Formats: sequence, C-alpha cells, structure tokens
Amino acid sequence: MSAHRPRVVILGGGFGGVYTALELERALGRRDDFEIALVNRENYFVFQPMLPEVISGSIGLTDVVNPLRELLPRTELHVRDVESVDLDARRVTTSPGFRPHAHHLAYDHLVLALGNVTDFRGLPGLPEHARPFKNLGDALGLRNHVIRALEEAAVEQDDPELRRELLTFVVAGGGFSGVEVVAELNDFVRAAARRYRGLDPAELRVVLLHSQARILPEMDERLALFAQRLLQRRGVELRLQTRLQAASGHEALLAGGERIATRTLVSTVPALAHPLIESLPLPKSKNNKLVTQPHLAVAGRDDVWALGDCAQVLMPDGTPAPPTAQHATRQAAVVAHNVVAALRGGRRRIFDFKGLGTMGSLGHRSAVAQVFGFALSGFLAWWLWRTVYLLKMPGWGRRLKVATSWTLDLFLPPELVGLRFAGSRGISREHYEPGEHVFRAGDLGDRLYIILAGEAEVLRAGAQGEQVVARLVAGQSFGEMALLNQTTRNASVRCARSLDVLSLPKQEFAVLAAHLPELRQSFERLAAEREAAGGAREGHDAH
Amino acid sequence: MSAHRPRVVILGGGFGGVYTALELERALGRRDDFEIALVNRENYFVFQPMLPEVISGSIGLTDVVNPLRELLPRTELHVRDVESVDLDARRVTTSPGFRPHAHHLAYDHLVLALGNVTDFRGLPGLPEHARPFKNLGDALGLRNHVIRALEEAAVEQDDPELRRELLTFVVAGGGFSGVEVVAELNDFVRAAARRYRGLDPAELRVVLLHSQARILPEMDERLALFAQRLLQRRGVELRLQTRLQAASGHEALLAGGERIATRTLVSTVPALAHPLIESLPLPKSKNNKLVTQPHLAVAGRDDVWALGDCAQVLMPDGTPAPPTAQHATRQAAVVAHNVVAALRGGRRRIFDFKGLGTMGSLGHRSAVAQVFGFALSGFLAWWLWRTVYLLKMPGWGRRLKVATSWTLDLFLPPELVGLRFAGSRGISREHYEPGEHVFRAGDLGDRLYIILAGEAEVLRAGAQGEQVVARLVAGQSFGEMALLNQTTRNASVRCARSLDVLSLPKQEFAVLAAHLPELRQSFERLAAEREAAGGAREGHDAH
Repeated sequence: MSAHRPRVVILGGGFGGVYTALELERALGRRDDFEIALVNRENYFVFQPMLPEVISGSIGLTDVVNPLRELLPRTELHVRDVESVDLDARRVTTSPGFRPHAHHLAYDHLVLALGNVTDFRGLPGLPEHARPFKNLGDALGLRNHVIRALEEAAVEQDDPELRRELLTFVVAGGGFSGVEVVAELNDFVRAAARRYRGLDPAELRVVLLHSQARILPEMDERLALFAQRLLQRRGVELRLQTRLQAASGHEALLAGGERIATRTLVSTVPALAHPLIESLPLPKSKNNKLVTQPHLAVAGRDDVWALGDCAQVLMPDGTPAPPTAQHATRQAAVVAHNVVAALRGGRRRIFDFKGLGTMGSLGHRSAVAQVFGFALSGFLAWWLWRTVYLLKMPGWGRRLKVATSWTLDLFLPPELVGLRFAGSRGISREHYEPGEHVFRAGDLGDRLYIILAGEAEVLRAGAQGEQVVARLVAGQSFGEMALLNQTTRNASVRCARSLDVLSLPKQEFAVLAAHLPELRQSFERLAAEREAAGGAREGHDAH
Repeated sequence: MSAHRPRVVILGGGFGGVYTALELERALGRRDDFEIALVNRENYFVFQPMLPEVISGSIGLTDVVNPLRELLPRTELHVRDVESVDLDARRVTTSPGFRPHAHHLAYDHLVLALGNVTDFRGLPGLPEHARPFKNLGDALGLRNHVIRALEEAAVEQDDPELRRELLTFVVAGGGFSGVEVVAELNDFVRAAARRYRGLDPAELRVVLLHSQARILPEMDERLALFAQRLLQRRGVELRLQTRLQAASGHEALLAGGERIATRTLVSTVPALAHPLIESLPLPKSKNNKLVTQPHLAVAGRDDVWALGDCAQVLMPDGTPAPPTAQHATRQAAVVAHNVVAALRGGRRRIFDFKGLGTMGSLGHRSAVAQVFGFALSGFLAWWLWRTVYLLKMPGWGRRLKVATSWTLDLFLPPELVGLRFAGSRGISREHYEPGEHVFRAGDLGDRLYIILAGEAEVLRAGAQGEQVVARLVAGQSFGEMALLNQTTRNASVRCARSLDVLSLPKQEFAVLAAHLPELRQSFERLAAEREAAGGAREGHDAH
C-alpha cells in the first residue's frame, strides 16, 4: 500500500473498539509490522456495567473508567470527535482540539465500533428535559442533579408543588440499563434522604416506566419477576405497559394522558445508530446498523470492519447478536484476527459465539443472573456479578481500587458531595405542556424567552383573579422587561398549546445586548410598545 | 426577640463558618434553645490544605471535601448564593434554586465567614484566561485541562508552536498556595507524560512566578530556600522578582515585556474581599476586611460577627491574624462562645491565639514545617503534614478513605482520566496581545467575534506573502462569513492593539440567528458588504 507500515484505524472506545485494539496489540508482538490508532471522544474506556454505581458514589467516581493510554500502550490515541470518513481516499477527519484546524488520519483498515447513541428526537420535550444514561458525564450529571434536588427540597418548605416535583424520580425503560439505574437511584435517594433535616423519606417517589408486561425482557420470566418484587419491596413504583410520551421541565407525560410531576427524568431508550454511521454510504439494516459478513467485514468491502452496537452481526442461528459486552469482546477477537490475516496473509475466522448468560445488578447486595442454564437471584447472584465484573475489569490497579471502595462502602454512609461544574445553563431550549407555568408574577427575572412553536398566554392578577391578557405565538418573545429593568416579573406566562421556547440567561442576554445594537434596539422597542399597550389596557403582557 | 427560638445565621462554609457551627452545635446540647442555619454555595466543606492533591488525583476526587450535612447534623443548611443582607431588618436573602423566587432568612445573630475571592480585575486578560485555585471546581477544572493539554500535545506532531504552548504550565504566586499547586502540578505532568507515546518529558516546562526575592514569605528563610532547591531539582523553573502583568489564551506576559507561551496559567493571587462584604455598610480596613472588636463582633455592632479571611482580627501583639485554618478555627471557638454568651447571658471571651506554626507540602513525599520553634524539612515534615491534616479532617469515614487512597497511591500509577463536563465554552470573552492570531486562513470557522476594545488586523496571502488588508476596531465583528456559509476561514485575523473580543460559538450563533431576524439580517448585510468590498479590492477582510 505504501512504503510505511500499514495502519489500522479504530473508531470508538467502547468494548468493541478497545478489545479490537487489545487483540491487535497482542498480535503485533515483536513483528511490529503495522500501526494501530484509536479515535475516541474521551481518554478513557468506560466499564459500562458499573456505570450505575456512579450514581451512589459507592465506587470512586473515576474508578469505573480506565485510561486508554494505560490499557493500550502501543496504540496511538486521538481524543477527538470523528468529523467524517472518506471511504475512497481511506481517510478519517477528526475535529479540532485547541486550535481549529482539522486533522486527517489515513488508514489501510478501518474498524467501526462507534456504538449507538441515545436519541430523543420525535418525542416532544425529551431532547430538552430527559437525561440519557450512556457515559460517565451522564452518570455524574445525574448524581449531581439528584443531590441538588434533595438540597433544594430540604429548604423548600412553603411550595408543596415544587417539593413534590423535586422528590419524584422517574426512569423510563425496563431493560438491563433502566433496571440497574432505577435500583441504584432508589437506594441512593432513600439512604441520602435520611441525612437531610426537613426531608421525610416517605415523601420520596421513584418510578420505573416500562412499555411491556414485565421488565428485563432479556431474562427468564422467573428472574424478571424476582427483580420486580425486589424493586417494589425497596419502594420503586413499577408502571408496566406504560409508555413515556413527552416531557417538560416539570413533568413526565405518559401515553394515555397521565402526568407525573418530576424534575428528574432519565430515559435509557431509544438507542439509535451513531450519526456518523448514518452518513456513511455503506449497506445498513432496517434499524440503521451496518450489515456485516460472517467474518465481520462490512458487506461489500474488505477494508472496513464493523462490530458491537453499530453493527448487525448474525449469530450461528441467524438471529442478530445482542448488544452486550460479552458479544462485543468476542467480535473484537474475530475482527482483530481477520485484519491481521488480511495484512499478513492467513485464514479468516467467522463469528460463531452463542453467549454465556446474562446478569443484572439490583443494587444493595442483590442481582439476577442466568449463566450456563442456571438462574440465580439475590445475594449469590450479586456476589457473582461483582466477582465476574471485577475480574473482567482491565488492570490490577483499577481492580484493587474498586475492591477497596466496595469494601469501605459496606460500612460507610452514602457520599453526598454535589459537584457543580460550569454551573449555569447557557442558551437552551425548553419545552412546556399546556397548563404549565414558564414563570409567575413576582418571580425574579432571570431569563428571556423566544417562542419557537406553540402558544403561550400572559396572565395578570385583576379584580376577578388571574386573567389572560395576551396570547403569544412563534417568533414572539417574552420576559425581556425584567431583564432590561432588573426587576421581578409583573405577570405570569403559562403554556396554552405545546410550547417550545429558546431561553437566554440574563447574563448572556445582557452581554449580547450591550454589544449588538440591533438586538438591544429591537428589545427596547418591544418593551416600549408593550408598556404603552399595557398602560392603555391595564397591563397587557408579561415582562 | 420573638416567641420563636433565636436563630444564628452563618454565611460561608469554610473553616471559619463550619467550625463556628460545630462549636454552636456543641454548645446547644440538650438545651436546644437556639437555631443554627448555614448558607454556603456548595453542600460540602473543602478541606483546603489538601485541595492541591486533587490535581494529581492521589486522593479520591471527592475525599478532599466533607458533606456539610454529615458534619453538622443540627444545622439547617441552605445551599445557595447570598444575594443580599438587610442589617436593619436582620434578614438574609438567598438566590433562587430550581424556581426563580427569592428566599429570606431572618436572624438574631449573623456570623460573616465568607472568606475571600480570587479577583483578576485590572490585569488585562487574566479574568478571561487565568485559572484561580480556590475551590474543588477550580482544582478539578485544572486537572482536566492539564490532561486535555497533554492529550492534544501527544497528537499535535506538526505544529511545534502549539505543542510548546500546550506543554508549558505557569503558576503565579509563591505563597503556600502557589507553591503547593506548582509542586503537585509538576509531579503530576512529569509522571503522566511518561505514559504518553509521542511526549518527551524533556519537552515539559513548569514555571513558578513570584514577585519577591524568595518564595514562602510566611516561613523562615532556611525553609524557603530548602523548598526552592527542592522544586528546582524536580524541574520547576523559578522566576523570582517577576510579576505577571497580563495574559492571553496563548501566553503569560511578564512585567518587563517577556512572554511565556502557555495554554495553562494558574494564579493564586490576588485574593480580594468577598463582593458581599464590599456591599455591606460596615466598617472596613484598608484592604476591605471587616474591622472586628477583640471579642470578634464587627466594630459598632453586637449582632454581627466576623472571622476568617473576610475579617481583620488583631492578635495580642496588635498584628492582623494570618489567613490560615488554625487561626480561623480558634476564631470560630471565640465567636461561638460569645454568641452563646449573648443569647444566654455570660462572660465573653477575646481572641488571643498566637499560632502554632506553619506547614506546606512540596508534593512527592517532601514538605516544610515550622512548629513550636522547630524547622523541619523533607520526609519527616511531609509525614508530619499528612498526619496532622489527617487528624484535623472531620469524620472518621473520610480519614479512612484518605488514608487508603494515600496508601494505594504509593504503588499505583498516576490517574489519567480526563472528565469533560458541559464541554463547549458558551459565549465568552477573550483577550489577545499584539502579534497573536485570533485565527488563521484555512482554520475551521467555529466562532464569531465582536470587538469590545483594541484593534485587529485582517491578513490575506498575496503575491508578497501575507498582507494587512483591513483594520477592525471596537463595535465591529469578524468571522461571521465562515459561520453563515459553513466554510473555512479565507483570511487570518491578528491582534494589532491589545484586543478584547466577545466570542460566540457557531452553534449558539446559529440558534440565535435563526430566531432573531434582526440579528440575522444585520450579519447578512455585513457579509454582503464585505464580499462586495473584497471582490473590488481583491479580498477585503476575514470571514
């Protein structure tokens, strides 16, 4: 191909990508006849099965991850996003780091192991208000948000509605991921609430939504029912055959119209194909996964390979391999073997792994497992779960740290430190459902809103109570008066028809208005118009 | 005062505030005759002396902090910012949490323990580009930034200038805080660099800037010189009698004109009074600290108390007490005693603590200490340092965790996990010094810039190399073309006169432009004008 050593470029640092690199490093040996490069957003490998434990902080916040450089000493690591792939030129473009110039990475073999992404498009309000649970940032973000909700509820003694929202936690999705998240979240908030004066654990509500008749569809019915009983005994409210339909900042909307008031909504569904996979001109299955040949090259190619959650890999019985770590690591061994065979010559292998079993943690020293035909539940399954995963974790140092944390966790109280990073939300989108308030008269004016879709109504207190004095639709803005004059809201704004708004914090609006004269003038004009109209009609709208 | 029990409100959760609450809880005993409330931005107490260890991750990221609720079970905790204090109405207003309405907190006695803040105002570029080192967020932010710089340098093989910037780390301030930070930072980057392919530890440069003739002015000269030699032996470059004058995103400017190219600048000076203290109509010293009476009530008041770094407390010899934990905790005991005396009747105490000694860690098993007239340095001082602070840490669980981490750290490699939170900078201010590039032709167009002050020049490649084709001043913007058309920069922009800009990321600009017609129109008009002018004069300016 070139005078240089051929290069294998792997995209993605999950189980598929990392284990492919590990196997390639092993095959490289002393021959050192090819190069390995791996591109990943983060400089660490997330040991996904333990991610839910970050919520409770029962293991060190970074012990659940493994630095890629330590794991893969012979691989060139690019901590970047992948911008694009040119399949004809055999070149990957990565996004800029500290300086905005693009980097190119040529390959001889390309391994696509990009996994999937949580994508809430199509469900109103979910992109804005539901939290995914895919990576370490999501897990830490959820933990900190939950701690902040408890803190606020503890001092919020005179607003029962807000208190209820703050103390209700909803998880959507009853697969492994959702069940493990709800189990850890429930254990954590119930243990933590005991440490807050002014919080009664009986006020807590933890809800699991699942669209099917029972949770854990991947498992035996007996184990799934065991898990259901256990979660319920610990205080989790199970809502089966219930689908999440929409969300706002204050509530989860269920199909059928029921609303659950909450400020914490986690959704582990739906997982969609990685956007880069979507953009590649390669054959894809109905659910947008890359179609692979039995030796795991992408259909029709001999220099592009795919595995893990972004690939459709068929098992010996013709069914697609499930999206689990044990399958991804076995696929990685096949891909690495076949890439080496293509480079050095040799026979290729095909993927024919059938699976060993499945395990799921239920938190607090219980789990369910189905291994070699046996079904286990309770403490024994939990012990097995910990042991298997501890041994599967790469690196002795990490294992030692995790084992130590687990040991200390047995007798130390829950960790309640809430970390705030970056802090304020910048310019963001928000969604409101009919009847919800965006703000109320008397609130501090901390944001400006621009309506993207839907309808809002402005309410003022009059002789007959609050009355609608104006209606606002797409393209109109509100809330600017409080910002210009630094006062509190003089009217309330409520959602009339499913409302999408763009919201700008006071500080960012002030900076922009100060330096963009057109912007300032247009809001000053608007404010003056509204003031005049309001004076004439005794209060027209909400500033 | 009222039918209710009197309430003591403490503002600030550092050593002063937390130890006042601890002493008050102890005095409360079974009599339970008053209430204690504490307002703090975070829900944890930072054990400040160990904060630098977060940089290297040698102790767990959250082990350096202690949840306030665990520490203070009988205190009502408000995790809020303090908005204002009404001294006449005896009322504290805290800032909003999840819903934007203000909270009020009435007090009978107010304890001000707000500490100081790092404030870079008046030094060009420092507010935008220097990192403070005061709280856990700063420490974690620095750690993650340093890891990211190493990651980028490792893949940045063809831009030696950027590589040099990324691998140079500058700390300003040679007091305890600056010395401990530079010691940990130096140990960490040198240990970490060995794990990166493509990084040569010899390329690393760690610089300590100090304005005086020797570091650690708080200590004996002999110990300070020991510390200097030790830091130098480990590779820290000491720049004494050198003052930091300005900064940009790419360099530190020293008084005298020397420039050090760096992307990492930490400054532990100057510490100014907390803004709330500034705003209170109470007597203040020249350096804006609250003037206190010998029993620590603020001069002229008997219901407002002050201690720690926000107060000027005189020692028996008439000199101000230094800003250390040992003084703050002794002051806390005096304040608590006197508040209780005021509530229940009884004799007041005065503050007459002389100090026990001083200690500073130099990282990697060395320290300097000056205790009871003895001067210690090296391993023994380090052992003393660890033991004293371990015993001073509140809570056995925390002590156990820290002791375990320290033990594991003795034989485990450095922790390299870089966490990214929130990710992209939003709308931000940037500062450039003459000669620096804002961007270069060919770079990806990822931000729009508005000039706040100074002058920029636009450069285009011509027959005689790059030539200045336009000059831009305050109020003008640049970089918008690349955003509107999604292409790469067609010209370079360089700072001509000390330049302050407001920079908007592509994504936020796009969202704003899509929904604020005035904004979009004004940039479209500008782009059209520039295009026309550029066509006529063969390229007018930078888009």
